[in-house]
Amino acid sequence: MSPTPTSSESWAAAAQRALDAKVKPRAALGRLEPIGRRLAALQGTLTPRTDPARVSVFAGDHGVTDEGVSAYPAAVTRQMLDVYENNGAAISVLGRSVGAEVEVVDVGVDADVRELEGVVHAKVGRGTKNLRTAPAMTPDDCEAAMDVGRAAARRATEEDVRALGLGDMGIGNTTAAAALCSALTDASVSATVGPGTGVDGERLTRKRAVVQDAVQRARDANVKAPDALLSHLGGFEIAAIAGAALAAPEHDLAVVADGYISTVGVLAAVRMDPTVRDACFFAHRSSEPGHEVALDALDADPLLDVDLSLGEGTGAALALPLLRAAADVLREMDTFDEADVDTAIDT
Amino acid sequence: MSPTPTSSESWAAAAQRALDAKVKPRAALGRLEPIGRRLAALQGTLTPRTDPARVSVFAGDHGVTDEGVSAYPAAVTRQMLDVYENNGAAISVLGRSVGAEVEVVDVGVDADVRELEGVVHAKVGRGTKNLRTAPAMTPDDCEAAMDVGRAAARRATEEDVRALGLGDMGIGNTTAAAALCSALTDASVSATVGPGTGVDGERLTRKRAVVQDAVQRARDANVKAPDALLSHLGGFEIAAIAGAALAAPEHDLAVVADGYISTVGVLAAVRMDPTVRDACFFAHRSSEPGHEVALDALDADPLLDVDLSLGEGTGAALALPLLRAAADVLREMDTFDEADVDTAIDT
Repeated sequence: MSPTPTSSESWAAAAQRALDAKVKPRAALGRLEPIGRRLAALQGTLTPRTDPARVSVFAGDHGVTDEGVSAYPAAVTRQMLDVYENNGAAISVLGRSVGAEVEVVDVGVDADVRELEGVVHAKVGRGTKNLRTAPAMTPDDCEAAMDVGRAAARRATEEDVRALGLGDMGIGNTTAAAALCSALTDASVSATVGPGTGVDGERLTRKRAVVQDAVQRARDANVKAPDALLSHLGGFEIAAIAGAALAAPEHDLAVVADGYISTVGVLAAVRMDPTVRDACFFAHRSSEPGHEVALDALDADPLLDVDLSLGEGTGAALALPLLRAAADVLREMDTFDEADVDTAIDT
Repeated sequence: MSPTPTSSESWAAAAQRALDAKVKPRAALGRLEPIGRRLAALQGTLTPRTDPARVSVFAGDHGVTDEGVSAYPAAVTRQMLDVYENNGAAISVLGRSVGAEVEVVDVGVDADVRELEGVVHAKVGRGTKNLRTAPAMTPDDCEAAMDVGRAAARRATEEDVRALGLGDMGIGNTTAAAALCSALTDASVSATVGPGTGVDGERLTRKRAVVQDAVQRARDANVKAPDALLSHLGGFEIAAIAGAALAAPEHDLAVVADGYISTVGVLAAVRMDPTVRDACFFAHRSSEPGHEVALDALDADPLLDVDLSLGEGTGAALALPLLRAAADVLREMDTFDEADVDTAIDT
């Protein structure tokens, strides 16, 4: 056995040595190897694991839907909570499919949903203000929403969860994500605004104008710090995602960003605390064009490229088997020595 | 319910109607949707499934290793069978990780392995001839090796398997795959020959010359039919993979091509019978450069792009959760009607 490493960097190096000793050509497991290395460094072990795995779906409403930026009525956020409760949503199916728990957290749904027993009730407010004309959240409410995410990371860890997907549900939230993404990265709204759940034509033009107005409003108010931009342009569920990411390192918890909204939440967190990046995995490259801007800002190369645009943590769920596989290889695969197999011919 | 479709084309159309009714924006599940459609068409049902899933690893040796084209000694093929027997190989770990059975089939290993209880014993010969200077297999032996693959597809179906990954093990088999790929596609050996398990420098130059000689030998002998090219330039395990793919349609069995060797085997099968293509899924884009040539010839856009170069069916295993997810969505996700959720606003 190798001596026990003493820093996360040397855990990564020790993990790579362990992978190089496995009965396969060097680097033959491709991207599973850096995932394994990163899980080893994060968890401080050569036998990392990702199970139990969970996807937290943070739900919130958005005042900006008043501007007609969405293809679905705002009431759908509330209606979807019933679908989650009945285990019939896409994330319900995909969670079961990949062997991950799914938890739905009400951070800011604009309805009284206290009768739903399957939901984690952590409502900070009933929807945000219209971010075109006013800050989406007060600083206190934004901090409270981040605390909901921090609590989700802590709860997961207390329940032995090792990988946490960060999902979102909220009609209007690609508009908020686009505004926050533009403000955090200085990318133009033409790069950050896309069809979301299916707007096009005149409605897409309007969405772009709304996001431009919102970004300009924050700029005029001289808002620059990432937490302030989050409260001005984000949403309750986006703040919760940021909070979960912010808490991940202290719990040695791997968090898995999903699509555009989730990645922008993680980007806000990394801007607040760059050390968060080491705990973050990026599930997929969504078909929403702004996602690329957020991924680039995080220097992230996601694992899957399967044209998802649903949110709910669906992409994070689909990426979990790859994280699990990377951990399983480190824990379970034989070495050349154990297997008594010849190594490569010296050339 | 929709009326029962009467052809595979209408099963696909009915599956897309079913997906469009699910509680999500249209097409929001990206590439899961065409997978679901294809599984529905293949199985003739709107409730397809991919479980139980299995990966068959076909093993064979290659006389061309006499030319010094490999980074590992030929004895490693035999040694790896022990690792499979002990469940310590990469595919052993990844099969468990994704919930797929793994079966190892000796089609042409150059050793007596009858004492291994976990192996399916179907040896056709002890390694192929050196394909640089002679046909790798006789036509009869090649047909027998294809029959081993057909039997694997039939056995899987009899045991209720619905998705079968096609894996390979055989030192020297990227050399055979490159020769067969060049002969089937007319691509130059500079496009089809790559490092395999890690050859470079002078050894890579030699590998390229060997493949060029082999392709030229088949050309000089006026060998053109895909089955004849397979016997001249393939290998026992490559022929078995082709046979499994050839048998897939009659069993309504989804087969999942793995990396370069597996994809070239499937390409040979599709050249023999183009209807086979509908049963084939392509797991990943490997880091072996020739894989792209074979994928292009099949008009295949694989699901994963994670730089694997191991074979053994490891990529097929990692793609199985995506196939399972696509089937689960069709079987389990609620519709807008069932969920009583508002559909998109008319614009």
